[in-house]
Amino acid sequence: MPFVVEPIGHVQASRAQAEDDFWGNEEARVNLAPSFSSEALHGLAEFSHAEILFVFHQVDEAKIISTARHPRNNPDWPSVGIFAQRGKNRPNKIGSTICRILRVEGTSLVLAELDAIDGTPVLDIKPVMREFLPRQAVRQPSWSHELMASYWLAK
Amino acid sequence: MPFVVEPIGHVQASRAQAEDDFWGNEEARVNLAPSFSSEALHGLAEFSHAEILFVFHQVDEAKIISTARHPRNNPDWPSVGIFAQRGKNRPNKIGSTICRILRVEGTSLVLAELDAIDGTPVLDIKPVMREFLPRQAVRQPSWSHELMASYWLAK
Repeated sequence: MPFVVEPIGHVQASRAQAEDDFWGNEEARVNLAPSFSSEALHGLAEFSHAEILFVFHQVDEAKIISTARHPRNNPDWPSVGIFAQRGKNRPNKIGSTICRILRVEGTSLVLAELDAIDGTPVLDIKPVMREFLPRQAVRQPSWSHELMASYWLAK
Repeated sequence: MPFVVEPIGHVQASRAQAEDDFWGNEEARVNLAPSFSSEALHGLAEFSHAEILFVFHQVDEAKIISTARHPRNNPDWPSVGIFAQRGKNRPNKIGSTICRILRVEGTSLVLAELDAIDGTPVLDIKPVMREFLPRQAVRQPSWSHELMASYWLAK
């Protein structure tokens, strides 16, 4: 059974096109849709981080992977399932990123390190609580560290 | 502009009804929809944790909050915006939880600490990479620690 989701806001950012790396010095905003008031963000600035769920809206449906592929199509890395990677060409095209909260301004949330392009539809904003982060040591394959090596560097 | 999302699978779990606390000893499965093969999960077991995006499908549309409220309606905690809390009665009704991967069995992912009830539609599975966790110290208000005090305890 399908579900219909409605953007709660949109990203205002400097990048107009998807890029793989160098998101470190990005400052971006989530501007809430007109149906929301500033009340919806009340208290959020007491948190240091927020998790932003958004839609990779520019991904062509025909390019969605539902099996396996080499991350970033790089043959140096193993072919892994689409649910074992975080690439954008995925079923439902939903991205999820933990960002640093810089400030709240009315119905706008100003963030550092949101890896989404200008105009991206936002589905949710959640405060980051330590209790919802991994409660044990994190283990991951070496290809994923290689893939992320330049991701958060400044441009 | 609304988006249509389609469950990629469903949760198989012991709890049939939503509960606030004591999710610590839960073991649950995400069973992929028939359109997927085991390829979609290939390589996921090399990660210790996965982020599961799911729909709080039992939430009545009429009970969705788009302004502010006391978390869990507890007047001891401040009234904060719906985007400053993680409660289920939220626009788009999407939940996001980082779970521990126990094992992959064919088209099933077996998880510890998935706080979702039996039958929950799943929208995405993402591997947890340290690089996507907060890259700075996490700060959060004291009410959120109080709210989470019993969340991951065993029942």
